[in-house]
Amino acid sequence: MVDIKENFTSHIIDLQAKNCKSIEKIDKKSKFKKENWKRPGGGGGITMVLENGNIFEKAAINTSIVHGKLTKLLKQKMSTEFSNFYACGISIIIHPTNPFIPTIHSNFRYFEIYDNKKRINEAWFGGGIDLTPYYINKNDIIFFHTFLKQKCDKYDINFYNKFKSQCDQYFYNHHRKEARGVGGIFYDYLGKGDKKNWKNLMNFQKEISSSFLKIYLPIVNNNKSLFYTESQKYWQELRRGRYVEFNLIHDKGTHFGIQTNGRIESIFVSLPPKVRWDYNFIPEQNSKEQELINILKNPVKWI
Amino acid sequence: MVDIKENFTSHIIDLQAKNCKSIEKIDKKSKFKKENWKRPGGGGGITMVLENGNIFEKAAINTSIVHGKLTKLLKQKMSTEFSNFYACGISIIIHPTNPFIPTIHSNFRYFEIYDNKKRINEAWFGGGIDLTPYYINKNDIIFFHTFLKQKCDKYDINFYNKFKSQCDQYFYNHHRKEARGVGGIFYDYLGKGDKKNWKNLMNFQKEISSSFLKIYLPIVNNNKSLFYTESQKYWQELRRGRYVEFNLIHDKGTHFGIQTNGRIESIFVSLPPKVRWDYNFIPEQNSKEQELINILKNPVKWI
Repeated sequence: MVDIKENFTSHIIDLQAKNCKSIEKIDKKSKFKKENWKRPGGGGGITMVLENGNIFEKAAINTSIVHGKLTKLLKQKMSTEFSNFYACGISIIIHPTNPFIPTIHSNFRYFEIYDNKKRINEAWFGGGIDLTPYYINKNDIIFFHTFLKQKCDKYDINFYNKFKSQCDQYFYNHHRKEARGVGGIFYDYLGKGDKKNWKNLMNFQKEISSSFLKIYLPIVNNNKSLFYTESQKYWQELRRGRYVEFNLIHDKGTHFGIQTNGRIESIFVSLPPKVRWDYNFIPEQNSKEQELINILKNPVKWI
Repeated sequence: MVDIKENFTSHIIDLQAKNCKSIEKIDKKSKFKKENWKRPGGGGGITMVLENGNIFEKAAINTSIVHGKLTKLLKQKMSTEFSNFYACGISIIIHPTNPFIPTIHSNFRYFEIYDNKKRINEAWFGGGIDLTPYYINKNDIIFFHTFLKQKCDKYDINFYNKFKSQCDQYFYNHHRKEARGVGGIFYDYLGKGDKKNWKNLMNFQKEISSSFLKIYLPIVNNNKSLFYTESQKYWQELRRGRYVEFNLIHDKGTHFGIQTNGRIESIFVSLPPKVRWDYNFIPEQNSKEQELINILKNPVKWI
């Protein structure tokens, strides 16, 4: 499986460069700042951040390629007896300026664990892509889910339903009893213990991760010119608070990053730029804001 | 110890009303909104919140009086075999508008655990008060710590040093390797297993909790008229991000509230009203902003 590691690692590096270029082209105002960082325990990453753009208030496209020793806690979580690991991944988080454009998050990663003789003991893919709107535009959401289903179906007819429900379960603010957003797909340990199917799974992982622009840009273009009021911007900033709550309280990626001494500024680059917490803000009955809450309280089968 | 429970419970209710009145009087613009809430498992609380004030951007003064069953996890944390509990407490969190006034947090609580025959098995006080400035004003900080030391010394000559160092340890953003603020005092399990000293400890707990206005208002008055720039306000909003990080990642009170199905809006009322996360913001060399960071990286012995 050595070529999977090399193949997927170079794939995410190419993808990062390509996505950054396209995002800059659309934004027309801000440019990505690049930062190479090293992880004390082994490896490092490239953090690319665009701030105060025209369309994108904050966009982060990060890769990390890390290796070293798992802590006891992580070994337990991954139910492995071995502690040498290699992990590489790309993550994209975009917080748009206009509250009618949803926030998007995606992450695609590959993981290897080595036995005491430095042979691969286990390997798997993880990933996902999900949408967090501030206002509900049903056509956009159906387009998003349909696109994902079509990609999934090419590889395994069971993928979409399984990964969609895992996404709803994962991106859930338990303490609020509401979903973070309108979902998408989410999977982990894909291919673990299954050596035959690797080529197919790698193709799936590469195709789905390469689809980011094709799935997000139509949604950006549909909404980027919509007029919004100050109170709609205010609502977006309040809802971004829920995004922060999820990332800091529940997100395993954030906790993994902290526990492996990842670079904090690269982990927290996912946090929205401007956020509000008002006490007990309750939207008006039958408002567009209330419509969002209703949908987040009861996850929808979009297709 | 029945009279301690009743005595301290009525003390916090009085204190809440008194503190709200004084805060409104100084603010001169906004009033507290009052909300009574019930906890499904037993008890409830009174949440008092003032927003968009003249001097106070958000001020919350909450009491809660809850009882019921501890979860397994909480029993482990409190190392008790019994699960019936009673807890009452007052917490105050004030986020001022002017970045030259520090944020203040305080919490004073009393806890009882009952054996299978509903007799008190254990009881203790917990509490603390700490300051989170955005700019360093050494005189204010020294006044704050001196005041606390004098109050502590009246009851036990060892209290201040012990509680000061516990405060530095507790209010620490491990993932940033920096303190949340400039400390104060923090203690828990005070009086646990020590039945002789109860009267003295209750007097301490009542006196220190009653000191809130006397310790904070002079600091407010010293700084409330200072002129501040937009970029100083920006700095305050960035630093408030660290406050959110502490409360959501590390704070035991937040986690206790979530785990006991506390009312989320009453728990999260401690979060600042307007917050920013910029990527890797680094203050200028030798600036006032850098001075704050230097102090938070190396906790100071203020007196």
